[in-house]
Amino acid sequence: MRVAQVIGTAIATVKDARLTGGTLLVVNIVDGKGKVLEPAHVAVDTCGAGVGDTVLIAQGSAARLPAALATAPVDAAVVAIIDQITLS
Amino acid sequence: MRVAQVIGTAIATVKDARLTGGTLLVVNIVDGKGKVLEPAHVAVDTCGAGVGDTVLIAQGSAARLPAALATAPVDAAVVAIIDQITLS
Amino acid sequence: MRVAQVIGTAIATVKDARLTGGTLLVVNIVDGKGKVLEPAHVAVDTCGAGVGDTVLIAQGSAARLPAALATAPVDAAVVAIIDQITLS
Amino acid sequence: MRVAQVIGTAIATVKDARLTGGTLLVVNIVDGKGKVLEPAHVAVDTCGAGVGDTVLIAQGSAARLPAALATAPVDAAVVAIIDQITLS
Amino acid sequence: MRVAQVIGTAIATVKDARLTGGTLLVVNIVDGKGKVLEPAHVAVDTCGAGVGDTVLIAQGSAARLPAALATAPVDAAVVAIIDQITLS
Repeated sequence: MRVAQVIGTAIATVKDARLTGGTLLVVNIVDGKGKVLEPAHVAVDTCGAGVGDTVLIAQGSAARLPAALATAPVDAAVVAIIDQITLS
Repeated sequence: MRVAQVIGTAIATVKDARLTGGTLLVVNIVDGKGKVLEPAHVAVDTCGAGVGDTVLIAQGSAARLPAALATAPVDAAVVAIIDQITLS
Repeated sequence: MRVAQVIGTAIATVKDARLTGGTLLVVNIVDGKGKVLEPAHVAVDTCGAGVGDTVLIAQGSAARLPAALATAPVDAAVVAIIDQITLS
Repeated sequence: MRVAQVIGTAIATVKDARLTGGTLLVVNIVDGKGKVLEPAHVAVDTCGAGVGDTVLIAQGSAARLPAALATAPVDAAVVAIIDQITLS
Repeated sequence: MRVAQVIGTAIATVKDARLTGGTLLVVNIVDGKGKVLEPAHVAVDTCGAGVGDTVLIAQGSAARLPAALATAPVDAAVVAIIDQITLS
Protein backbone atom coordinates (compact mmCIF):
# COMPACT_ATOMS: atom_id res chain seq x y z
CA MET A 1 0.00 0.00 0.00
CA ARG A 2 1.05 3.62 -0.23
CA VAL A 3 0.69 6.61 1.99
CA ALA A 4 -1.18 9.38 0.18
CA GLN A 5 -2.44 12.89 0.78
CA VAL A 6 -5.93 13.81 -0.44
CA ILE A 7 -5.66 16.97 -2.55
CA GLY A 8 -8.99 17.14 -4.37
CA THR A 9 -11.95 15.45 -5.96
CA ALA A 10 -13.03 14.47 -9.46
CA ILE A 11 -16.58 14.56 -10.81
CA ALA A 12 -17.86 12.49 -13.74
CA THR A 13 -21.38 12.30 -15.16
CA VAL A 14 -20.67 9.87 -18.00
CA LYS A 15 -19.16 6.75 -16.46
CA ASP A 16 -19.29 2.98 -16.28
CA ALA A 17 -22.52 1.76 -14.70
CA ARG A 18 -20.59 0.00 -11.94
CA LEU A 19 -18.48 3.02 -11.00
CA THR A 20 -20.79 4.14 -8.23
CA GLY A 21 -20.55 4.68 -4.54
CA GLY A 22 -17.53 6.40 -3.08
CA THR A 23 -16.19 9.82 -3.98
CA LEU A 24 -13.34 9.91 -6.49
CA LEU A 25 -10.46 11.42 -4.53
CA VAL A 26 -7.40 12.92 -6.20
CA VAL A 27 -4.37 11.99 -4.08
CA ASN A 28 -0.61 12.41 -4.13
CA ILE A 29 1.44 9.41 -3.05
CA VAL A 30 3.84 10.69 -0.39
CA ASP A 31 6.54 9.38 1.90
CA GLY A 32 6.20 9.23 5.68
CA LYS A 33 6.97 12.94 5.98
CA GLY A 34 4.60 14.22 3.30
CA LYS A 35 7.07 14.57 0.42
CA VAL A 36 5.28 13.88 -2.89
CA LEU A 37 6.56 10.74 -4.63
CA GLU A 38 3.87 10.25 -7.31
CA PRO A 39 1.32 12.98 -8.06
CA ALA A 40 -2.30 12.71 -9.11
CA HIS A 41 -3.58 9.22 -8.54
CA VAL A 42 -7.36 8.80 -8.22
CA ALA A 43 -8.68 6.53 -5.45
CA VAL A 44 -12.25 5.70 -4.48
CA ASP A 45 -13.06 6.61 -0.93
CA THR A 46 -14.46 3.94 1.40
CA CYS A 47 -13.57 5.60 4.72
CA GLY A 48 -15.10 9.06 4.68
CA ALA A 49 -11.76 10.69 3.87
CA GLY A 50 -11.54 14.28 2.72
CA VAL A 51 -9.12 16.87 1.41
CA GLY A 52 -6.10 17.21 3.68
CA ASP A 53 -6.31 13.71 5.14
CA THR A 54 -3.35 11.36 5.04
CA VAL A 55 -4.68 8.02 3.86
CA LEU A 56 -3.60 4.50 3.03
CA ILE A 57 -4.40 3.43 -0.51
CA ALA A 58 -4.51 -0.11 -1.84
CA GLN A 59 -3.79 -0.55 -5.53
CA GLY A 60 -4.63 -3.20 -8.09
CA SER A 61 -7.15 -5.95 -7.38
CA ALA A 62 -6.85 -5.15 -3.65
CA ALA A 63 -8.93 -2.04 -4.33
CA ARG A 64 -11.95 -4.25 -4.97
CA LEU A 65 -11.81 -6.10 -1.66
CA PRO A 66 -13.79 -3.46 0.27
CA ALA A 67 -17.39 -4.70 0.18
CA ALA A 68 -18.78 -1.68 -1.67
CA LEU A 69 -16.31 -2.00 -4.52
CA ALA A 70 -16.46 -5.73 -5.32
CA THR A 71 -17.63 -5.26 -8.91
CA ALA A 72 -16.49 -1.69 -9.55
CA PRO A 73 -13.90 -1.00 -12.26
CA VAL A 74 -11.43 0.54 -9.82
CA ASP A 75 -7.72 -0.05 -9.26
CA ALA A 76 -7.14 2.17 -6.21
CA ALA A 77 -9.13 2.69 -3.02
CA VAL A 78 -8.67 4.48 0.27
CA VAL A 79 -8.69 1.64 2.81
CA ALA A 80 -7.69 3.61 5.93
CA ILE A 81 -7.26 7.12 7.27
CA ILE A 82 -3.81 7.28 8.85
CA ASP A 83 -3.67 8.74 12.35
CA GLN A 84 0.06 8.55 12.83
CA ILE A 85 3.25 7.35 11.17
CA THR A 86 6.18 6.60 13.45
CA LEU A 87 9.59 6.53 11.76
CA SER A 88 12.73 5.54 13.62
CA MET B 1 -7.05 5.16 -11.38
CA ARG B 2 -5.34 7.88 -13.33
CA VAL B 3 -6.47 11.07 -14.98
CA ALA B 4 -5.67 10.98 -18.70
CA GLN B 5 -6.06 13.11 -21.79
CA VAL B 6 -7.16 11.45 -25.02
CA ILE B 7 -4.68 12.39 -27.77
CA GLY B 8 -5.45 9.93 -30.57
CA THR B 9 -6.59 6.54 -31.73
CA ALA B 10 -4.97 3.29 -32.84
CA ILE B 11 -6.23 0.97 -35.58
CA ALA B 12 -5.41 -2.72 -35.85
CA THR B 13 -6.64 -5.26 -38.38
CA VAL B 14 -4.71 -8.27 -37.10
CA LYS B 15 -5.64 -8.74 -33.47
CA ASP B 16 -6.75 -11.19 -30.83
CA ALA B 17 -10.28 -12.47 -31.49
CA ARG B 18 -11.48 -11.11 -28.14
CA LEU B 19 -10.10 -7.61 -28.68
CA THR B 20 -13.32 -6.21 -30.05
CA GLY B 21 -15.73 -3.51 -29.13
CA GLY B 22 -14.46 -0.18 -27.94
CA THR B 23 -12.10 2.14 -29.79
CA LEU B 24 -8.42 1.94 -28.85
CA LEU B 25 -7.66 5.39 -27.48
CA VAL B 26 -4.12 6.73 -27.13
CA VAL B 27 -3.95 8.72 -23.90
CA ASN B 28 -1.42 10.62 -21.84
CA ILE B 29 -1.63 10.19 -18.09
CA VAL B 30 -1.74 13.70 -16.63
CA ASP B 31 -1.99 15.41 -13.27
CA GLY B 32 -5.01 17.44 -12.19
CA LYS B 33 -3.82 20.43 -14.24
CA GLY B 34 -3.08 18.61 -17.48
CA LYS B 35 0.70 18.19 -17.09
CA VAL B 36 1.81 14.95 -18.77
CA LEU B 37 3.11 12.36 -16.29
CA GLU B 38 3.24 9.23 -18.50
CA PRO B 39 2.82 9.47 -22.27
CA ALA B 40 1.22 7.06 -24.71
CA HIS B 41 -0.87 4.52 -22.88
CA VAL B 42 -3.62 2.78 -24.85
CA ALA B 43 -7.03 2.37 -23.19
CA VAL B 44 -10.22 0.84 -24.54
CA ASP B 45 -13.12 3.25 -24.59
CA THR B 46 -16.35 2.27 -22.85
CA CYS B 47 -17.81 5.77 -22.41
CA GLY B 48 -17.91 7.37 -25.82
CA ALA B 49 -14.79 9.42 -25.12
CA GLY B 50 -12.94 11.20 -27.90
CA VAL B 51 -9.81 13.19 -28.62
CA GLY B 52 -9.44 16.12 -26.22
CA ASP B 53 -11.52 14.58 -23.43
CA THR B 54 -10.12 14.28 -19.93
CA VAL B 55 -10.91 10.76 -18.78
CA LEU B 56 -10.48 8.39 -15.87
CA ILE B 57 -8.66 5.19 -16.73
CA ALA B 58 -8.63 1.98 -14.72
CA GLN B 59 -5.57 -0.23 -15.13
CA GLY B 60 -4.88 -3.90 -14.58
CA SER B 61 -7.67 -6.40 -14.02
CA ALA B 62 -10.01 -3.48 -13.22
CA ALA B 63 -10.10 -2.74 -16.94
CA ARG B 64 -12.09 -5.92 -17.49
CA LEU B 65 -14.87 -5.06 -15.05
CA PRO B 66 -16.91 -3.03 -17.55
CA ALA B 67 -19.44 -5.50 -18.97
CA ALA B 68 -18.25 -5.22 -22.58
CA LEU B 69 -14.65 -6.08 -21.68
CA ALA B 70 -15.07 -9.10 -19.40
CA THR B 71 -13.09 -11.47 -21.61
CA ALA B 72 -11.04 -8.99 -23.61
CA PRO B 73 -7.22 -9.04 -23.32
CA VAL B 74 -7.05 -5.45 -22.08
CA ASP B 75 -5.23 -3.87 -19.14
CA ALA B 76 -6.55 -0.31 -19.38
CA ALA B 77 -10.03 1.10 -19.99
CA VAL B 78 -11.71 4.49 -19.92
CA VAL B 79 -14.27 4.13 -17.12
CA ALA B 80 -15.43 7.75 -16.90
CA ILE B 81 -15.28 11.09 -18.69
CA ILE B 82 -14.18 13.67 -16.14
CA ASP B 83 -16.30 16.82 -15.96
CA GLN B 84 -14.32 18.62 -13.34
CA ILE B 85 -11.35 18.22 -11.00
CA THR B 86 -11.34 20.39 -7.90
CA LEU B 87 -7.95 20.82 -6.24
CA SER B 88 -7.57 22.68 -2.97
CA MET C 1 -1.99 -1.42 -23.08
CA ARG C 2 1.18 -0.03 -24.55
CA VAL C 3 2.44 0.60 -28.04
CA ALA C 4 5.64 -1.38 -28.65
CA GLN C 5 8.17 -2.00 -31.39
CA VAL C 6 9.43 -5.54 -31.93
CA ILE C 7 13.25 -5.49 -31.89
CA GLY C 8 14.21 -9.16 -31.53
CA THR C 9 13.50 -12.62 -30.21
CA ALA C 10 14.56 -14.71 -27.23
CA ILE C 11 15.19 -18.46 -27.27
CA ALA C 12 15.01 -20.71 -24.20
CA THR C 13 15.47 -24.48 -24.01
CA VAL C 14 15.03 -24.85 -20.24
CA LYS C 15 11.68 -23.37 -19.35
CA ASP C 16 8.43 -23.88 -17.49
CA ALA C 17 6.37 -26.69 -19.01
CA ARG C 18 3.49 -24.30 -19.67
CA LEU C 19 5.58 -21.69 -21.44
CA THR C 20 4.89 -23.00 -24.91
CA GLY C 21 3.32 -21.72 -28.05
CA GLY C 22 4.09 -18.22 -29.23
CA THR C 23 7.49 -16.77 -29.97
CA LEU C 24 9.11 -14.72 -27.21
CA LEU C 25 9.44 -11.26 -28.72
CA VAL C 26 11.76 -8.62 -27.32
CA VAL C 27 10.00 -5.26 -27.61
CA ASN C 28 10.57 -1.64 -26.70
CA ILE C 29 7.58 0.25 -25.33
CA VAL C 30 7.31 3.42 -27.43
CA ASP C 31 5.10 6.46 -27.74
CA GLY C 32 2.88 7.15 -30.72
CA LYS C 33 5.85 8.42 -32.76
CA GLY C 34 8.25 5.57 -32.02
CA LYS C 35 10.28 7.19 -29.23
CA VAL C 36 11.44 4.51 -26.75
CA LEU C 37 9.84 4.87 -23.31
CA GLU C 38 10.78 1.51 -21.72
CA PRO C 39 13.33 -0.80 -23.35
CA ALA C 40 13.49 -4.57 -23.42
CA HIS C 41 10.20 -6.07 -22.37
CA VAL C 42 9.46 -9.63 -23.50
CA ALA C 43 5.97 -10.39 -24.83
CA VAL C 44 4.56 -13.64 -26.19
CA ASP C 45 3.33 -13.33 -29.73
CA THR C 46 -0.26 -14.35 -30.53
CA CYS C 47 -0.66 -12.41 -33.78
CA GLY C 48 2.17 -13.47 -36.08
CA ALA C 49 4.13 -10.29 -35.34
CA GLY C 50 7.78 -9.99 -36.30
CA VAL C 51 10.79 -7.73 -35.97
CA GLY C 52 9.99 -4.17 -37.06
CA ASP C 53 6.25 -4.41 -36.39
CA THR C 54 4.50 -1.89 -34.18
CA VAL C 55 2.30 -3.87 -31.83
CA LEU C 56 -0.12 -3.48 -28.95
CA ILE C 57 0.90 -5.33 -25.81
CA ALA C 58 -1.33 -6.23 -22.89
CA GLN C 59 0.38 -6.60 -19.53
CA GLY C 60 -0.46 -8.41 -16.31
CA SER C 61 -3.27 -10.95 -16.13
CA ALA C 62 -4.64 -9.55 -19.43
CA ALA C 63 -1.79 -11.35 -21.18
CA ARG C 64 -3.44 -14.67 -20.36
CA LEU C 65 -6.80 -13.83 -21.95
CA PRO C 66 -5.77 -14.89 -25.47
CA ALA C 67 -6.94 -18.52 -25.77
CA ALA C 68 -3.48 -19.99 -26.36
CA LEU C 69 -2.05 -18.44 -23.19
CA ALA C 70 -4.73 -19.24 -20.61
CA THR C 71 -2.41 -21.30 -18.37
CA ALA C 72 0.97 -19.94 -19.47
CA PRO C 73 3.17 -18.11 -16.93
CA VAL C 74 3.25 -14.91 -18.96
CA ASP C 75 2.64 -11.29 -18.01
CA ALA C 76 2.85 -9.66 -21.44
CA ALA C 77 1.41 -10.62 -24.82
CA VAL C 78 1.12 -9.06 -28.24
CA VAL C 79 -2.65 -8.73 -28.73
CA ALA C 80 -2.68 -6.71 -31.96
CA ILE C 81 -0.47 -5.51 -34.78
CA ILE C 82 -1.01 -1.77 -35.11
CA ASP C 83 -1.73 -0.51 -38.63
CA GLN C 84 -1.94 3.14 -37.81
CA ILE C 85 -1.86 5.60 -34.93
CA THR C 86 -3.59 8.92 -35.47
CA LEU C 87 -2.54 11.71 -33.11
CA SER C 88 -4.22 15.07 -33.17
CA MET D 1 9.42 -9.75 -4.69
CA ARG D 2 11.54 -6.94 -3.35
CA VAL D 3 14.04 -6.61 -0.57
CA ALA D 4 12.91 -3.95 1.92
CA GLN D 5 14.03 -2.36 5.16
CA VAL D 6 11.43 -1.72 7.86
CA ILE D 7 11.66 1.93 8.92
CA GLY D 8 8.47 2.53 10.87
CA THR D 9 4.82 1.80 11.50
CA ALA D 10 1.48 3.36 10.59
CA ILE D 11 -1.59 3.51 12.82
CA ALA D 12 -5.17 3.90 11.57
CA THR D 13 -8.39 3.94 13.57
CA VAL D 14 -10.81 4.50 10.69
CA LYS D 15 -10.23 1.72 8.19
CA ASP D 16 -11.87 -0.96 6.07
CA ALA D 17 -13.46 -3.67 8.19
CA ARG D 18 -11.26 -6.32 6.58
CA LEU D 19 -7.99 -4.47 7.17
CA THR D 20 -7.21 -6.25 10.41
CA GLY D 21 -4.48 -8.45 11.73
CA GLY D 22 -0.88 -7.61 11.02
CA THR D 23 0.90 -4.37 11.80
CA LEU D 24 1.17 -1.83 9.00
CA LEU D 25 4.91 -1.53 8.42
CA VAL D 26 6.47 1.39 6.56
CA VAL D 27 9.33 0.02 4.47
CA ASN D 28 11.87 1.24 1.96
CA ILE D 29 12.54 -1.00 -1.01
CA VAL D 30 16.33 -1.46 -1.15
CA ASP D 31 18.92 -3.29 -3.19
CA GLY D 32 21.02 -6.15 -1.82
CA LYS D 33 23.35 -3.72 -0.06
CA GLY D 34 20.69 -1.54 1.59
CA LYS D 35 20.60 1.34 -0.90
CA VAL D 36 17.07 2.79 -1.06
CA LEU D 37 15.40 2.24 -4.45
CA GLU D 38 11.77 3.16 -3.62
CA PRO D 39 10.87 4.88 -0.35
CA ALA D 40 7.78 4.57 1.80
CA HIS D 41 5.77 1.54 0.82
CA VAL D 42 3.39 0.11 3.42
CA ALA D 43 3.32 -3.67 3.88
CA VAL D 44 1.27 -5.77 6.28
CA ASP D 45 3.42 -7.89 8.56
CA THR D 46 2.81 -11.65 8.71
CA CYS D 47 6.21 -12.68 10.09
CA GLY D 48 6.73 -10.74 13.30
CA ALA D 49 9.06 -8.27 11.58
CA GLY D 50 10.05 -5.01 13.25
CA VAL D 51 11.91 -1.79 12.62
CA GLY D 52 15.43 -2.42 11.34
CA ASP D 53 14.67 -5.84 9.84
CA THR D 54 15.46 -6.60 6.23
CA VAL D 55 12.41 -8.31 4.79
CA LEU D 56 11.02 -9.79 1.62
CA ILE D 57 7.80 -8.19 0.43
CA ALA D 58 5.33 -9.63 -2.04
CA GLN D 59 3.26 -7.12 -4.00
CA GLY D 60 -0.05 -7.28 -5.82
CA SER D 61 -2.42 -10.21 -5.41
CA ALA D 62 0.48 -12.25 -3.96
CA ALA D 63 0.09 -10.21 -0.77
CA ARG D 64 -3.21 -11.95 -0.11
CA LEU D 65 -1.83 -15.50 -0.28
CA PRO D 66 -0.72 -15.59 3.37
CA ALA D 67 -3.63 -17.22 5.21
CA ALA D 68 -4.35 -14.25 7.49
CA LEU D 69 -4.72 -11.85 4.56
CA ALA D 70 -6.97 -13.79 2.18
CA THR D 71 -9.78 -11.23 2.19
CA ALA D 72 -7.86 -8.13 3.31
CA PRO D 73 -7.64 -5.12 0.97
CA VAL D 74 -3.84 -5.22 0.88
CA ASP D 75 -1.37 -5.11 -2.01
CA ALA D 76 1.88 -5.66 -0.13
CA ALA D 77 2.87 -8.06 2.64
CA VAL D 78 6.04 -9.08 4.43
CA VAL D 79 6.38 -12.78 3.53
CA ALA D 80 9.85 -13.45 4.98
CA ILE D 81 12.51 -11.94 7.22
CA ILE D 82 15.78 -12.11 5.30
CA ASP D 83 18.74 -13.59 7.18
CA GLN D 84 21.34 -13.15 4.51
CA ILE D 85 21.79 -12.00 0.93
CA THR D 86 24.77 -13.40 -0.95
CA LEU D 87 25.86 -11.42 -4.01
CA SER D 88 28.61 -12.65 -6.28
CA MET E 1 8.17 -10.62 -18.95
CA ARG E 2 11.61 -9.20 -18.39
CA VAL E 3 15.12 -10.33 -19.13
CA ALA E 4 17.14 -10.59 -15.90
CA GLN E 5 20.60 -11.56 -14.73
CA VAL E 6 20.93 -13.68 -11.59
CA ILE E 7 23.36 -11.95 -9.22
CA GLY E 8 22.82 -13.72 -5.90
CA THR E 9 20.55 -15.53 -3.48
CA ALA E 10 18.54 -14.66 -0.38
CA ILE E 11 18.07 -16.89 2.65
CA ALA E 12 15.17 -16.62 5.11
CA THR E 13 14.39 -18.80 8.11
CA VAL E 14 11.27 -16.96 9.29
CA LYS E 15 8.84 -16.91 6.40
CA ASP E 16 5.27 -17.55 5.32
CA ALA E 17 4.40 -21.25 5.51
CA ARG E 18 3.61 -21.33 1.79
CA LEU E 19 6.89 -19.74 0.71
CA THR E 20 8.66 -23.02 0.08
CA GLY E 21 10.26 -24.76 -2.83
CA GLY E 22 12.48 -22.81 -5.15
CA THR E 23 15.55 -20.80 -4.26
CA LEU E 24 15.04 -17.05 -3.81
CA LEU E 25 17.21 -15.53 -6.53
CA VAL E 26 18.31 -11.90 -6.50
CA VAL E 27 18.21 -10.63 -10.07
CA ASN E 28 18.78 -7.43 -11.98
CA ILE E 29 16.34 -6.66 -14.78
CA VAL E 30 18.47 -5.95 -17.85
CA ASP E 31 18.03 -5.09 -21.51
CA GLY E 32 18.97 -7.43 -24.34
CA LYS E 33 22.65 -6.51 -24.00
CA GLY E 34 22.96 -6.89 -20.23
CA LYS E 35 22.58 -3.23 -19.21
CA VAL E 36 20.88 -3.00 -15.81
CA LEU E 37 17.42 -1.38 -15.99
CA GLU E 38 16.04 -2.23 -12.52
CA PRO E 39 18.29 -3.62 -9.78
CA ALA E 40 17.54 -6.11 -7.03
CA HIS E 41 14.30 -7.91 -7.72
CA VAL E 42 13.79 -11.28 -6.02
CA ALA E 43 12.36 -14.13 -8.10
CA VAL E 44 11.66 -17.73 -7.13
CA ASP E 45 13.55 -20.22 -9.25
CA THR E 46 11.59 -22.96 -11.03
CA CYS E 47 14.20 -23.81 -13.70
CA GLY E 48 17.41 -24.66 -11.89
CA ALA E 49 18.89 -21.23 -12.65
CA GLY E 50 22.01 -20.01 -10.86
CA VAL E 51 24.22 -16.98 -10.48
CA GLY E 52 25.37 -15.64 -13.84
CA ASP E 53 22.44 -17.03 -15.81
CA THR E 54 20.33 -14.78 -18.01
CA VAL E 55 16.72 -15.65 -17.25
CA LEU E 56 13.17 -14.72 -18.15
CA ILE E 57 11.07 -13.60 -15.21
CA ALA E 58 7.30 -13.41 -15.05
CA GLN E 59 5.84 -10.87 -12.65
CA GLY E 60 2.51 -10.48 -10.91
CA SER E 61 -0.03 -13.30 -10.81
CA ALA E 62 1.85 -14.96 -13.71
CA ALA E 63 4.50 -15.97 -11.18
CA ARG E 64 2.05 -18.40 -9.62
CA LEU E 65 1.26 -20.29 -12.83
CA PRO E 66 4.24 -22.67 -12.53
CA ALA E 67 2.83 -25.77 -10.82
CA ALA E 68 5.11 -25.57 -7.79
CA LEU E 69 4.08 -22.00 -6.97
CA ALA E 70 0.30 -22.14 -7.27
CA THR E 71 -0.37 -21.13 -3.65
CA ALA E 72 2.92 -19.41 -2.82
CA PRO E 73 2.91 -15.69 -1.92
CA VAL E 74 5.23 -14.77 -4.77
CA ASP E 75 5.02 -12.05 -7.42
CA ALA E 76 8.05 -12.96 -9.53
CA ALA E 77 9.38 -16.28 -10.82
CA VAL E 78 12.08 -17.45 -13.19
CA VAL E 79 10.11 -19.17 -15.96
CA ALA E 80 12.95 -19.81 -18.44
CA ILE E 81 16.72 -19.75 -18.78
CA ILE E 82 17.52 -17.70 -21.86
CA ASP E 83 19.95 -19.31 -24.33
CA GLN E 84 20.10 -16.49 -26.80
CA ILE E 85 18.64 -13.09 -27.57
CA THR E 86 18.74 -11.97 -31.19
CA LEU E 87 18.36 -8.23 -31.76
CA SER E 88 18.15 -6.79 -35.22
